This record gives sequence, C-alpha cells and structure tokens, in this order.
Amino acid sequence: MNPAFLKASAMPDVQSTLDERALPIEQVGIRGVRHPLMIRSATGNFPSVGTFEMDVALPAHVKGTHMSRFMALLQKQDDAVDSTTVVALVKEMLPLLDAKQGHIQFTYTHFVKKAAPVSGVESLMDYEVTWMANAQLNAAGAMDVQLGLRAQVPVMSLCPCSKEISEFGAHNQRSHVTMTVSLEPNTQMTVEDLVSAAESEASSELWGLLKRPDEKWVTEHSYSNPKFVEDLVRDVAGNLKADQRIQSFVVEAENFESIHNHSAFARISHSK
Amino acid sequence: MNPAFLKASAMPDVQSTLDERALPIEQVGIRGVRHPLMIRSATGNFPSVGTFEMDVALPAHVKGTHMSRFMALLQKQDDAVDSTTVVALVKEMLPLLDAKQGHIQFTYTHFVKKAAPVSGVESLMDYEVTWMANAQLNAAGAMDVQLGLRAQVPVMSLCPCSKEISEFGAHNQRSHVTMTVSLEPNTQMTVEDLVSAAESEASSELWGLLKRPDEKWVTEHSYSNPKFVEDLVRDVAGNLKADQRIQSFVVEAENFESIHNHSAFARISHSK
Amino acid sequence: MNPAFLKASAMPDVQSTLDERALPIEQVGIRGVRHPLMIRSATGNFPSVGTFEMDVALPAHVKGTHMSRFMALLQKQDDAVDSTTVVALVKEMLPLLDAKQGHIQFTYTHFVKKAAPVSGVESLMDYEVTWMANAQLNAAGAMDVQLGLRAQVPVMSLCPCSKEISEFGAHNQRSHVTMTVSLEPNTQMTVEDLVSAAESEASSELWGLLKRPDEKWVTEHSYSNPKFVEDLVRDVAGNLKADQRIQSFVVEAENFESIHNHSAFARISHSK
Amino acid sequence: MNPAFLKASAMPDVQSTLDERALPIEQVGIRGVRHPLMIRSATGNFPSVGTFEMDVALPAHVKGTHMSRFMALLQKQDDAVDSTTVVALVKEMLPLLDAKQGHIQFTYTHFVKKAAPVSGVESLMDYEVTWMANAQLNAAGAMDVQLGLRAQVPVMSLCPCSKEISEFGAHNQRSHVTMTVSLEPNTQMTVEDLVSAAESEASSELWGLLKRPDEKWVTEHSYSNPKFVEDLVRDVAGNLKADQRIQSFVVEAENFESIHNHSAFARISHSK
Repeated sequence: MNPAFLKASAMPDVQSTLDERALPIEQVGIRGVRHPLMIRSATGNFPSVGTFEMDVALPAHVKGTHMSRFMALLQKQDDAVDSTTVVALVKEMLPLLDAKQGHIQFTYTHFVKKAAPVSGVESLMDYEVTWMANAQLNAAGAMDVQLGLRAQVPVMSLCPCSKEISEFGAHNQRSHVTMTVSLEPNTQMTVEDLVSAAESEASSELWGLLKRPDEKWVTEHSYSNPKFVEDLVRDVAGNLKADQRIQSFVVEAENFESIHNHSAFARISHSK
Repeated sequence: MNPAFLKASAMPDVQSTLDERALPIEQVGIRGVRHPLMIRSATGNFPSVGTFEMDVALPAHVKGTHMSRFMALLQKQDDAVDSTTVVALVKEMLPLLDAKQGHIQFTYTHFVKKAAPVSGVESLMDYEVTWMANAQLNAAGAMDVQLGLRAQVPVMSLCPCSKEISEFGAHNQRSHVTMTVSLEPNTQMTVEDLVSAAESEASSELWGLLKRPDEKWVTEHSYSNPKFVEDLVRDVAGNLKADQRIQSFVVEAENFESIHNHSAFARISHSK
Repeated sequence: MNPAFLKASAMPDVQSTLDERALPIEQVGIRGVRHPLMIRSATGNFPSVGTFEMDVALPAHVKGTHMSRFMALLQKQDDAVDSTTVVALVKEMLPLLDAKQGHIQFTYTHFVKKAAPVSGVESLMDYEVTWMANAQLNAAGAMDVQLGLRAQVPVMSLCPCSKEISEFGAHNQRSHVTMTVSLEPNTQMTVEDLVSAAESEASSELWGLLKRPDEKWVTEHSYSNPKFVEDLVRDVAGNLKADQRIQSFVVEAENFESIHNHSAFARISHSK
Repeated sequence: MNPAFLKASAMPDVQSTLDERALPIEQVGIRGVRHPLMIRSATGNFPSVGTFEMDVALPAHVKGTHMSRFMALLQKQDDAVDSTTVVALVKEMLPLLDAKQGHIQFTYTHFVKKAAPVSGVESLMDYEVTWMANAQLNAAGAMDVQLGLRAQVPVMSLCPCSKEISEFGAHNQRSHVTMTVSLEPNTQMTVEDLVSAAESEASSELWGLLKRPDEKWVTEHSYSNPKFVEDLVRDVAGNLKADQRIQSFVVEAENFESIHNHSAFARISHSK
C-alpha cells in the first residue's frame, strides 16, 4: 500500500467538523461531470456521453459533504444505461454519502433511427434527454424514489396566420418542444414514447437525411398542418395529460421565428 | 395612410378564434429579444443591453395571443432603467394584451466601479443581473405585482481542506454566487446591495484592475479566509435571511474547481 | 499616497526578468473583458456592451507582458464609439505596453431602427458586430494599422428546391450571414453599409416588429425570392467584391434548416 | 419500390443547373450534425458523440452541392473511430460529391483513465478533441490528404507573481491549453500523446477523482511549479516543436483568472 496514503488517514478532516450556523443545505454536490455511456434503447444500444449532476441534502449541524464519494460512485458506472440506471445510482448514493435525501440527473444525446417519410431511407435523429431521480428516506426508514424524464424535441412549425393571409407560402422554422415529466416508479416509458408525444403534434417532425421526394412530403405536410406555438404546446400537453404513466408534466414550445431575430414560446404545466 | 395597411384590417385574424381544447396556457410570449438600455445605478448611469422575456397567461377558450403587442410595448422603452422599470412595464402589458396575468424579465450586464483594495485604482466589475415582475389581477380588479431580482456574482473561493492538509499553498478558483430574491413591493434594494451580500462572504471579491500590491492583498486575504462551497452558500444565505427587504430567496454557489474539470455546488432556498 | 503602494514599487517584478526559451509569443493579453459602450451610429447613439480582446506580441527574450496595463487603458474609454475608436486604442496600446505589434477587437450588439415593409412601424433589429485593429511598427518607426469589421446578420432563407418540387409551400428558416472585411484605413464604412450587403441578398431581411400586412409581405416576398445557401453566399460575396472600400473579405452563410436538426453552410473568401 | 420515390427521379434537380456568377465556393456542406461514436484509444474503446462538419469546394459554374450525400455518407459510419477514420471518410466523400477538394472534421469528448498521483485511485478525465482532414485531387489525379488534430486540455495554473509578492498562498485557476497540429500523413500520434504535451507543462494536471493525500500533492506540486500564461504557452510550444510527427502547430493557453472576471491568454504558432 502506498505509504503516503496511509499517512493521509491521519490528516485533519475539515469537512466533518460541527457547523453552527443552523442552516441546512438542500443540495450540495458536483455538476458538469462528463462520463461515457452506452445507452440501451428500443432500437438497440448506442454510444453517448452523459453530463452528471449529483447532490445530497446536508443537515444544519454538518459542515461539509464528501465530494470525492460522488465521483467514486460514478466511476463504477459502466453498464448499459436505461431508465433504471439513475434510480439504482441514487439508491446507492444515499448510504454512501450518509444522506437522508439526494438527487442525480444526467443529460445526454439520444439517437433514434428513423425512416424518411417517402423514400424510407434511414438516418439518425438526435435529441437532448435528461433522466432525473430524487430519493428520500421516509419515516419507516425505507427509500422513496421519484423518477423524471426530460426530452428536448426539435420539430418544424409553420405559422397559420402567415398561411392564411398570404397568397402563397407561409413562414416556418425550427422549434423545440421540451417536456419534463414525473413518472410512476415502475412505469415502462421509453424516450421514444416521450419523443413521439411531441413529434406527432408538430407541423412536421425532422429527419437527418431526406431525399427529394421526402423533402416534397415534408414541405406539403407542414403546409397542410399549420400550428401556432400555442397550438403546439396545447396539443403536446393533451397527449401528456392522456398518458396514464405520467403523474405531472411541464411542456414548453419555442419557435426560432424565421421572420424575427427572437423566439415565440408557450408553456403549460399540469399535475394529476 | 399606407393603403396596404388599411387593407390589412380586413385580413382574417386567426389568433382571435375560439379554442376548444380546454387547456389554459400559463405563459405565452416572446423571448430572446435584445434591447439597448441605459441603467440608472447608485454610482451613475451606464449603457447596457437587456435580453427580454415577456409573456401572459392565456385562458382555455382563446386560441392565441397577439405577439406583436409585446414588441410594440418594448419599442417604447427608452428611459433610464432601474427597479421600477420592470414593474411599470408589466402593469402596462396586462391591459394591452387583454390578460389577467403576465410576467416580464430582462437580463443585462451590470457594472460597478470599484476601487482596488490597496492602490485604490478604480475599474469596472461586471455582473449578470435579472429584474423580474409578475402581475396578476386580483378579485377586486386591482393589480398585484411581485418583484424579483437575480444577480450572478463572480468571486474567488479558497479551499479550507487544501490549506489545512498542505505544507504550503491552497487551491482556489473563480466561483459564481447566484442569488434570486423576492422583494417587498416598495422596497429600496439596489443591485449593489445584493452584490455586496455575496462579495462580503467570499474568500475574496474580484476586481477588473489590480496592481501588484492589490494582488498581494487578494492572495493573502483569500488564504486567510478559506471557504468550502457549503460555507459560501450558508454565509450568503445568512445575509439574505437577515435582510428585511427580502421575502424569500434561492442562493446557489458554484466553484469551477481548479483541481478538477467539473464544479462543486451548493444551494439553499428560504421563504420567510 | 498609500504607503502599501509605495512599498509595492520595491516588490520583485517577475514579468520583467529575461526569458531563455527563444520563443517569441505572437499574442499575449486579456480576453472576455466586458465594458459599457455608447455606440455612435448613422441613426443616433445607443447603449451597448463590448467584450474586448487586447494583446501584444512579445519578443523571445521577454518573460511576460504587463497584464494590468491593458485594463488601465480600457478603463479610460468612455467616449462614444465608432470605427475610429479601435484604431485610436491600438495606437495608444503599443507604446503603453512597450510593444512593436498589437491587436484589439471588441464585439457588441449593434441596433438599427428599421421600418416594417408595409405598415412602416419602427422597431430595432440587433446584430452582433466586431471591430478589429492590428498595429505594427514599421521599419521607419511609424505605425501601420489595419482595420477590420465583422457583422453577423440574421436573415430568412427559403429553399428553391423545396419550392420547385412541392405543390404548395416551401421550407424556410433563420440564417446567419457573417462577413469579415478588411477596410482601407481612411474608409468611411458604417455597420449599416455592411449589414445591407447581406440583407439585400436574403430571401427576406428580418424585423423586430411586424404587423399582419408586413407578415404577408415577408411571406410572399421570400417565396418569390428563394435562395440556396450557395446563392446567398455568392450574392453577398458579389456585393463585397464590388465595394471599393473593402480590401479582402470572408463571407459565410449558415442556414438553421427547418427540416433537419443541423445546418447547411457555405463560405467564400477573397483578396483584391 | 415506393412509387412516390420513382416519381421523384423525374423531379427537377435545381442544384444541378448552371451558375453564372463566376464565384467558386471554397466550402459548402453541413455542420452541427451529431453522430454516436465508439472511440478506439490506447486505453481501450469508449462511447462518445461526434459533432461533424463536412464540406466540399464548388466550382464557379455549378449552382449547388448535393447536401443529402454528406448525411448518407455519415450514416454508414459505425466502426470504432481513430485517427484513420476522418482520412477514410474524406477520401470517400470526394468522388461521392463529384468534388476536387473537401474537408471533414468532428469534435467529440475524449476520455482518459488516469491514476491519482498518490492514492493511485483511477478515474476518467475528459478532453474536447477534434480530428480534421483536408483532401485535394492533385495534378496527377491522385488525392493528397492533410491530417490535423486539436485537443483542448484543462489544467491548473498558479501565478508566479502572486507567489513571489505574497507572504503565503498564491492565486491559481483552471486554464485551457488548446493545441492544433498538422500531422505527417502516416504518423502514429495518439490523442494521449498530444494531451501529455500540455499536461506535463502545467502547474498541475487535473484528475476527476482525488483523495485527500492527492489533493495535498496537487496543492504543493502546483505551488512549487508556478507558471505565467506566457510560460505555459512557451513550454507547450517547446514540446510540440521538438516532436518530429508535427509539421506545424498553433497553441493557445487561456487562464480563467481567479482574481478577475476575465481571462489572460497567449498564443504561439509555428510551421517547420
């Protein structure tokens, strides 16, 4: 064993001293940690990179948490990742950090292989996805875990007003639909399920690769399917409201307006 | 008058039709709008640029809001700006948009002229600041307005553990203290007041321009004043808790660790 | 006088010692410094914020530059800013830093008041603009200064292929045209001149505020004026090539495609 | 076969028409395309995500390139990636796009498993890495390919001046060393080789996970090894100059100063 390491056990442990300011800390931990991930998805595993945030609640009388233990926990993570990963990690984190409450979330790029609407040619679409878990020791000493999922879905929106008032054409643009949902603990909800709740309501969904007949289809389909940012957010909210697996949600749509240099946006939240 | 404009008043107004999805929208509006601002501050006026978000609540039966009215309101803004500006704007916005509830916030770079600690040489320090206002028509038909202020204060933090265990030196780094506070409506709180609640608790505050004797002072002062991210967030929270003008707050400290490629962070929220 | 400051003049001046690595440094200085600016423009003065980069060349035998002098120079800047400002600053910087070569650039948000195409209603459009100056002592001991200007102009592009192959509609999106030009030293070129070289060639320019007849005009105008990213970059390059005030340029167009989640881009550079 | 697709072959092909503006385009293509990647490294394969830019030169008489072919090429990429990948891709791209000149680059997060300096505990460090390849048909009809590599290496820098003038302590901070190198075509240079050219010259390298004896070592090591931004850039440049595999390079060091809210930076370029 490294003798310097042995010597270290005699080092002062400043974090463990008593704190007298009577202020509990709701969250203390690490943020912006990047970690390589294999993602397990409905259409097969794919490589990605997660950016992690891991934290615990700290009682008023404890001076500091042990930051290195978060990283030690994360370094062990090398299994393929799905919705169960963040729950397993947060359950392991609480005892490791001597904490009664804690939270882990990680954001990564999710890929879905999609077939173009006419040619059927396949390509990957990318989405920014976050899995979140909050854990808490309850009165009985057991652990309650809440699972959350966020997906940012890029879509196309075409303006109904522009279409209606113009002799020809209609302005359209890229939009982001961002959904954050709380899930029933044992629910089977995939990222693909959530993504589709947004894509189905857009003027058109997007693809990585389109051939000319596909581009014709997307152009005409979106023109036939105009949506205000208000329509988009309401129609997606309608889908989320109807989904039994979702306990509560926030959905936001943002249009990067092609006729302005700013965005239009709308937001609905709902708790069942 | 422009004849094309006259003709336009006969154009179909798609946004004003009835909506039958029974889903009210909490916030709909514009975002990412940049506008030039003269800021009125304790130490004189200075130029800056605001990035605005303006939105209203939309009842379930109304299809869409009138996006151009937000911009029309903003274009009139050319007075020097202080804490009263966002309140006045939101009060004007509600009737203009036929709304019962609305919100405006803008983020800009705030400058404070500071004297270096030893040489006294003066330079500007920059802070990212946000003023926020929520307005709501109450049962009596009057308007209730809540005012909020956020400031992100860059400071220096020096690690107590590193100092304690090392023969010499101690790692230190830039940190951000971000405070979001709800204010009593008629409170006189300046950005400078809020900034100082964070700078006074850091291992050291920062300056734009330091001469060598100042650099010596900052180095020795921070070494004599080590703080964990937990200490920093608690000591700032203590200041905010003691301030009678503040109704509730969230404070977060984030250290861009000089020994890692990630951040340590801590967060306390409090409602009086 | 502050006694601590007097004592400091006896402090060791590490930066001024000899360096023996035989490696000259092309650029050393400061970056990311924010400073409030009043911008002098064709349509009147407006407030903004500049982000500065200031650097000098360092000969092989000198260990370090004097970082605080860059800031000292910048702190004096409080006049209204135009194309002459960056030239005057760089000329003052060289002797102050004992340098033979140096460079200053600052990026800020430029605002132009524009009238909507049909209603004539006025609003501000925002552009990201950079002024750059390189100075060099020539053999005769005089100073040569090169002046550069960059403007990022947000516009609308409408796809000719989509229009051609579709029964109705055509996808369009926000695009950025970014032009970087070297100017004749005594040239009178305004930001507005450069912006208009890009806006005139887009499927449509953008406005902050549009009423319905304006939106109809923009929709129909862009549909009648489709441009590939290749067309856009070539047509803007044609304008810059024909302008006698411009010695060399790089122009890039980037379309934030509304049918994909990635950009199409094109780039032309030219030296006369 | 899909009948709509058959019909599409009769669609007008706008991009292939003649262009009469006499302006060749140096680069036209796609940007910001994210693609999942397995990275082959010295210490084993790991998952990551690449962000791709792919473009070709377009002669003056050709109106447009075929954007969808870039994506078609990228979709086939699912082998493990190393320095040969970008070269193979660019060689395949030129004939596919009927181009005489082209360029591909992709940026991804590279991970290296490192042992802490005292405890030996292992953790991943993350680096932003870019592989670049330019290909050109030469007079003989063969293809010349130039290979480039960029790595951004986060390190710790400790200020010699602050140490020298202070009774105790010295300010330090996170810094980025960014190296862009041109490589001999058949060179064996790994990302790890390039990263180590920067880490070896910093006041200290960084680790994901450090135990207390490691933190003591990093603190004392960096205090014993102070470097100005000028020292850092020169010492790294010295390493790159001495490396026979490198034809030319640009190296930049940027210190996110812990005593200021801006950066100090320095830059050296060299061609052999």
